[in-house]
Amino acid sequence: MASPVPARPGDEIGQIDTPALVVDLDALEANIAAMAASTAAAGIALRPHGKTHKSVAIAKRQLAAGAAGLCCQKVSEAEALLPSGVADMLVSNHVVGTAKLQRLAALAAQVRTTTLTSDADHARLLSAAAAAAGVTFEILIEADAGDARMGLLDGSLLPDLALAVSDLPGLKLRGLQVYNGPFQHLRPQAARAQAAETAAARARAAREALLERGLCCDLLTGGGTGTFAEDIYAGVLNELQPGSYVFMDTDYGRNLDREGAPYRPFRQSLFVLTRVLRVPAPGVAYVDAGVKALNLDCGMPDVHEWPNLAYVRASDEQGRVEGEVLELGEELFLVPSHCDPTVNQYDWMVAVRGGRVEEVWPVDARGCVL
Amino acid sequence: MASPVPARPGDEIGQIDTPALVVDLDALEANIAAMAASTAAAGIALRPHGKTHKSVAIAKRQLAAGAAGLCCQKVSEAEALLPSGVADMLVSNHVVGTAKLQRLAALAAQVRTTTLTSDADHARLLSAAAAAAGVTFEILIEADAGDARMGLLDGSLLPDLALAVSDLPGLKLRGLQVYNGPFQHLRPQAARAQAAETAAARARAAREALLERGLCCDLLTGGGTGTFAEDIYAGVLNELQPGSYVFMDTDYGRNLDREGAPYRPFRQSLFVLTRVLRVPAPGVAYVDAGVKALNLDCGMPDVHEWPNLAYVRASDEQGRVEGEVLELGEELFLVPSHCDPTVNQYDWMVAVRGGRVEEVWPVDARGCVL
Repeated sequence: MASPVPARPGDEIGQIDTPALVVDLDALEANIAAMAASTAAAGIALRPHGKTHKSVAIAKRQLAAGAAGLCCQKVSEAEALLPSGVADMLVSNHVVGTAKLQRLAALAAQVRTTTLTSDADHARLLSAAAAAAGVTFEILIEADAGDARMGLLDGSLLPDLALAVSDLPGLKLRGLQVYNGPFQHLRPQAARAQAAETAAARARAAREALLERGLCCDLLTGGGTGTFAEDIYAGVLNELQPGSYVFMDTDYGRNLDREGAPYRPFRQSLFVLTRVLRVPAPGVAYVDAGVKALNLDCGMPDVHEWPNLAYVRASDEQGRVEGEVLELGEELFLVPSHCDPTVNQYDWMVAVRGGRVEEVWPVDARGCVL
Repeated sequence: MASPVPARPGDEIGQIDTPALVVDLDALEANIAAMAASTAAAGIALRPHGKTHKSVAIAKRQLAAGAAGLCCQKVSEAEALLPSGVADMLVSNHVVGTAKLQRLAALAAQVRTTTLTSDADHARLLSAAAAAAGVTFEILIEADAGDARMGLLDGSLLPDLALAVSDLPGLKLRGLQVYNGPFQHLRPQAARAQAAETAAARARAAREALLERGLCCDLLTGGGTGTFAEDIYAGVLNELQPGSYVFMDTDYGRNLDREGAPYRPFRQSLFVLTRVLRVPAPGVAYVDAGVKALNLDCGMPDVHEWPNLAYVRASDEQGRVEGEVLELGEELFLVPSHCDPTVNQYDWMVAVRGGRVEEVWPVDARGCVL
């Protein structure tokens, strides 16, 4: 059922059918090494998020670089990434629904499986599913990290919830999840630092509340690509779970450093290769990547190495670029504005090095929304 | 490589794993019948657009209802819909790139294949690919329909281009494409009527220019779900190519009729079924459908049959709804804001009738961007 492969190993760039998701292998490898080095130097674990790449090939590289395990956002995504050889899987979401809980139990029969809750009723559903299948779900209580989303907002309820989890059959308390999504994209470095301190203070208080009751808090996990340096500096989490650092996108590219300059600790490794379909007038062109080849919820893509060329408008299968005179059939590399959902559009990822296709990887967990 | 199936025939709604793309079969069948009846009554052909549903099962129903053929937007999409039994395929796009042109030639060896051009250089590329493979591409010149996109802007160039196409080996002129995408979404009926008149006037002039030179203009195709009634009334096109009418979405739902009321000639048949993951406070809930389960380029989804419940914000895998007190695990049907790219997120479509799953269809051309 998968769509056709856009290239074969050995192809030159010009032979890749378009639009295609292209990964610069040198940049990808540098990013994997850089995050591994940063977390190792800080003495904390790294659990890369598989929701970004959805790829066994990339997960293998992250594990080979020392990752302690993987995060996934969906149970079916975790299933699809098992061939990476991962031994410690965190489904960093609240799993709800009979079919999905059975699927989580089947996952736990294959690999150490940890998941989240912040609600006693939900914990009872998890417990029933685990007990029925004779497996154990390790549990992180999701504490609010300052963004008032899925986490437990009222910290005073935490010890009782943790105690309830500890007492439920099939569940084993492992610690805390303290992740703040919107904080990753705060532009000034000082704002990200303050956000990381907020999350760290909540994590510290939550950990202390568990330890006072004699409850387990082995794992204190959170953080992301936007705040990884600030999370390390804050010094409370013992594990980071960034995803986007492997690829980057224009949205992360808008974060700033201490001096207010663009903060780019990782290289752009992800591109959408597109081709010019039509040049209706000099300075205007239509390319073959539109809404079904990009994800525009964080804005329009940049055109790599063409600073004066702007991608201004998209229809479902076409994009309009303006500002330079292009030729029919000319290739452009677009920098996606939001890497995760862009990757999720594609069945295939073309890994290139030195102007040639080295490998073509399936996006193994593409469409794994269950 | 496809993601897991969310349901099985015979399941009740509550047994469907979420998020899932759900199609109301009664509404779908009514929509297919209504458009077939409207075009038949007007004596013009109907060529439904496969880019909307990407589904062999739905294409078969459209062909059984009398469709003259299918449109597809991509060559790989057309390949994926061949098992529908279609005998006349229009790739309503400009096909560019060596690999894709070879693929188009392979398609033309299997089925009557028509495609677009509005540029002599491009026509020569089409000709070379067809001639090399020993096949014929039938060609529609894409005339500008008033939206200044891919079509030929300067109508005075049309006869020479058509003559060039007629003279090129491997190409056979079939007529004109005059499609205006943005016109489909003009809200006041009078605006859509005026837009349809604009497109019709350009189509009429273009046809006359071809006929004056003794060139073929058998097919004069365009129009869409938003303007189908106005296109019929304008009386110039001899074929319509609507796609969204099978499903509808909130964006089309905002079009107005002559009295300024919502214009709803088709029923909403497409939904995303989602489940409540967490109720952090009364009146607030998080559901399991976010950016990877919907497409938000036309706004947030509606919540079907919950007029006071608003889907207010999305993260990659979650959505926040506000305005009603919901329960953990409760199911909601979301009405997508933009049907085509939402369908393209899913590997499976769950066809329901009377509260039960009747069939589960693959989204055969999902991800077929090539």
